[in-house]
Amino acid sequence: MKDRVAGKPARDVGPPALSAARPAARVTQVILGIDPSLRGTGYGVIRTDRSGPVALAQGTIACPKDWERSRCLARISQTLREVLQEHNPEVCVVEGLFFAQNLKTAIIMGEARGAAMAAVAEAGLGIHEIATRKVKQAIVGYGAAQKIAVAKMVQRLLNLAELPAPDAADALALALAHAAGNARYGLNPAKKI
Amino acid sequence: MKDRVAGKPARDVGPPALSAARPAARVTQVILGIDPSLRGTGYGVIRTDRSGPVALAQGTIACPKDWERSRCLARISQTLREVLQEHNPEVCVVEGLFFAQNLKTAIIMGEARGAAMAAVAEAGLGIHEIATRKVKQAIVGYGAAQKIAVAKMVQRLLNLAELPAPDAADALALALAHAAGNARYGLNPAKKI
Repeated sequence: MKDRVAGKPARDVGPPALSAARPAARVTQVILGIDPSLRGTGYGVIRTDRSGPVALAQGTIACPKDWERSRCLARISQTLREVLQEHNPEVCVVEGLFFAQNLKTAIIMGEARGAAMAAVAEAGLGIHEIATRKVKQAIVGYGAAQKIAVAKMVQRLLNLAELPAPDAADALALALAHAAGNARYGLNPAKKI
Repeated sequence: MKDRVAGKPARDVGPPALSAARPAARVTQVILGIDPSLRGTGYGVIRTDRSGPVALAQGTIACPKDWERSRCLARISQTLREVLQEHNPEVCVVEGLFFAQNLKTAIIMGEARGAAMAAVAEAGLGIHEIATRKVKQAIVGYGAAQKIAVAKMVQRLLNLAELPAPDAADALALALAHAAGNARYGLNPAKKI
């Protein structure tokens, strides 16, 4: 009961109080956010502690259009495995249910997700998913916010010198939303998949 | 020109003459067929040479319904990596464009494909896809054949003591269809992905 009271949502809009609500849990957590897509998977690793979130790594796994799909999938797995080894995150977050134009697009996006998730799950991390509108709600306070608004808030929350590239910004936003969810509710609102 | 003549399709319906049409290529090839799905990925490894195809391995990667998706994906990658290490196939075949009931199903099926394809591509294999109806055409001679008819023909072509399980039968059928395509056309009719 005490935990739940301590976990009440903070009302201010600034950087979420990422650790205050988890009195029984460790105060530092390293979170990997992934925004998978065949040609440009975004990833971002943040560390949260009492002083707020810090970006440890971010980037886009770019795969040229003339690469075969399978080559892209191998690249996604390999790169994420390197990121996992270097930064040792404890938990991973991906986008939840999303829009796809048609079944073929959905399958191809699914393939990118599968290549990413298999690498992460093989490393022993739990994977959570958060719906895009919940990410926007957590970061910007508005579920239908534009991508650029999210990227700008990600830049501000993490004190980044430059605006992150779109795919990396989405991945960092997922990680920040996960951290904010932990802080606000004292338990994880993201669905584990 | 001579190669093309030698590569003319055989008219008989029995086991495809799997090596006769590839005079310049090596006569033995080890082919991995995969029929990916989240809860029951089928796989089958065949070796083809002058005496016809032989099954080296087959099975289903079963993942119970109460397992999280990410755990299934990790299991798919791990198991296929073991199969690759044990049997050292040179090429891989998966099902081509397929039917999915809705976008969610397509994404989940795509995730299973991605986990499988990433493991295979990381091992350096090329991955080809063949449409289901072409597989049925190659194995049974009829593109709308029932699954059980395909499984029975797979059993016959590979001289298996027992009818293979459905997912494994589909995977073996993919590998056989790839081998038959090589034999009949002297080049690969399957799309590389």
